[in-house]
Amino acid sequence: MNSRSILLANRPQGEPSAAQFRFETAEIPPLQSGEVLLKTLYVSVDPYMRGRMNEGKSYIPPFEVGEPISGGVIAEVVDSQNDSLPKGTVVLGNLPWSEYTVSNDKGLNPLPTDGAPISYFLGLLGMPGLTAYFGLLDICRPKAGETVVVSGAAGAVGTVVGQLAKIKGARVVGTAGSDDKVAYLQQLGFDAVINYKTTPDIAQALAEACPDGVDCYFDNVGGAISDAVYDLLNKHARIALCGQISHYNATQEPQGPRPEPKLLKTSTLLKGFIVSDYAERFPEGVQALSQWLQEGKLQFEETITEGFDQIPQAFLGLFKGENTGKQLVKVADYSRS
Amino acid sequence: MNSRSILLANRPQGEPSAAQFRFETAEIPPLQSGEVLLKTLYVSVDPYMRGRMNEGKSYIPPFEVGEPISGGVIAEVVDSQNDSLPKGTVVLGNLPWSEYTVSNDKGLNPLPTDGAPISYFLGLLGMPGLTAYFGLLDICRPKAGETVVVSGAAGAVGTVVGQLAKIKGARVVGTAGSDDKVAYLQQLGFDAVINYKTTPDIAQALAEACPDGVDCYFDNVGGAISDAVYDLLNKHARIALCGQISHYNATQEPQGPRPEPKLLKTSTLLKGFIVSDYAERFPEGVQALSQWLQEGKLQFEETITEGFDQIPQAFLGLFKGENTGKQLVKVADYSRS
Repeated sequence: MNSRSILLANRPQGEPSAAQFRFETAEIPPLQSGEVLLKTLYVSVDPYMRGRMNEGKSYIPPFEVGEPISGGVIAEVVDSQNDSLPKGTVVLGNLPWSEYTVSNDKGLNPLPTDGAPISYFLGLLGMPGLTAYFGLLDICRPKAGETVVVSGAAGAVGTVVGQLAKIKGARVVGTAGSDDKVAYLQQLGFDAVINYKTTPDIAQALAEACPDGVDCYFDNVGGAISDAVYDLLNKHARIALCGQISHYNATQEPQGPRPEPKLLKTSTLLKGFIVSDYAERFPEGVQALSQWLQEGKLQFEETITEGFDQIPQAFLGLFKGENTGKQLVKVADYSRS
Repeated sequence: MNSRSILLANRPQGEPSAAQFRFETAEIPPLQSGEVLLKTLYVSVDPYMRGRMNEGKSYIPPFEVGEPISGGVIAEVVDSQNDSLPKGTVVLGNLPWSEYTVSNDKGLNPLPTDGAPISYFLGLLGMPGLTAYFGLLDICRPKAGETVVVSGAAGAVGTVVGQLAKIKGARVVGTAGSDDKVAYLQQLGFDAVINYKTTPDIAQALAEACPDGVDCYFDNVGGAISDAVYDLLNKHARIALCGQISHYNATQEPQGPRPEPKLLKTSTLLKGFIVSDYAERFPEGVQALSQWLQEGKLQFEETITEGFDQIPQAFLGLFKGENTGKQLVKVADYSRS
């Protein structure tokens, strides 16, 4: 039996395109003792993957040219030579973009199939949800009545950040890139949402949306939105630096107003982070998010593209703002669903 | 009896000059019940005062045009209608730049005159020493073997930061603006010092001085030095943002490379602060600094200019890097010294 994989064909300069991806078909080798054959069900495409397409040190090693791209994948065990992972088990792992993968049991986490939709373990109950949980609650620590600004608010992380901030009693202001996203976020309970693509003066719009200043800023985007937020910071503000998607495709080092004088005079805390910084506390996060989900206090939106060959387009769409909530690609149905 | 005061004549545009200061002579009014007459002994001039010469919100209210400039002053009670502050008491307070001041007892802290030189309460045991203590030990938290970079290392704050980092077992790299300062810091135990005025490539010099990267950065200066440090940050670095003297005289918003992508990929913490954020812990800081001073683990340098009429020049010299350690102006001798 054959399986297709998607390889990094070459490193992008600036905005990536379909030219960076190459499909390759190979025969699946027979299983050795201890191995399982995984059928890919869902593939996660995420903005951070753009960084891995570059050469050079970042928080995770780069993808190699000529090798499969990898990331968060949910897969089903369809053949097993490993007693700990019987056929029918659904697992979450960091796996290649392949239709089928042969793996041992290392780094595979079996998922419950009787509760939340399994795809949520790539979203609300996975990396994006945990990113929101720890960034907001450990770094920003919003108090009731404070003002929280979230950039990239309609993304997988941003939608959760905003709802968590509302649970904590904060006023929540988001930025997003379409009127549909604005309407969706308002329905989620955001107090104000700014369409950064159509608003002529973002700084003025933010100032009007934050009449009491900004206490917390959860930043997924960077650039002009951050510049405007920095001018509104209250004393002892907290900034969770989660993403900088506005710069990921930059071909030159981005320049802008220096933030330090503004962070200094407000005694602001700014903390960069990646969700793996909190790996030891993941169970706490999953537990809390599951609880709020069950209680109806959290909603979660997914944009699900269908078909293995659509993975590159789904990834490229992230930089055009095509998704609301979590962007996934569904590759196959779970056999027992 | 008459007393001279120094008033803010007008607000500076860019670098301040003697034109911003006006001397005024007035008769000292008779003391009312509860009041004391203070003779100024030492006046502190500090970079942060530049910010108070501007209009607009910062962490402390601006000086008013036509009113005396004020700041940290050590004075002697030379006449008293207040039993709690008898004649001969030496006090520290936030007081006007005047030869004599009539005050009640509010905000005046009596100083011991039998230990460290009283001028140290404007330096090592005062605002600059406490700034170094809390910024380094609460924000940067250097561990033995880590690398600490200090910009403005030869100033009142920087000299203490470097010595405290050495006490904690760190490798200490400083930047300073003259060969004399470099030699002085080497004598204090700094492992490497870069003369930023004569070094052609600061980024390369810093990289060579920090072969294991930078774990902690105590920033008094900002600008090009910070840009170079940001490129050397290790994972989980900590930055205490204490001052930005390179920008204080800017007439336009300073621009530069955006630091956020670098802070993000290293999970760096950056925290702006002002010493008053730690007001509740001042006794702890004074106690610890006094102890290290007594044990011979801390040295402290003062640049003392003499004469009330020299205050403006001493202040202006801060922005030309004329001082090593704490810049003070001695206005009068303590009658009992």
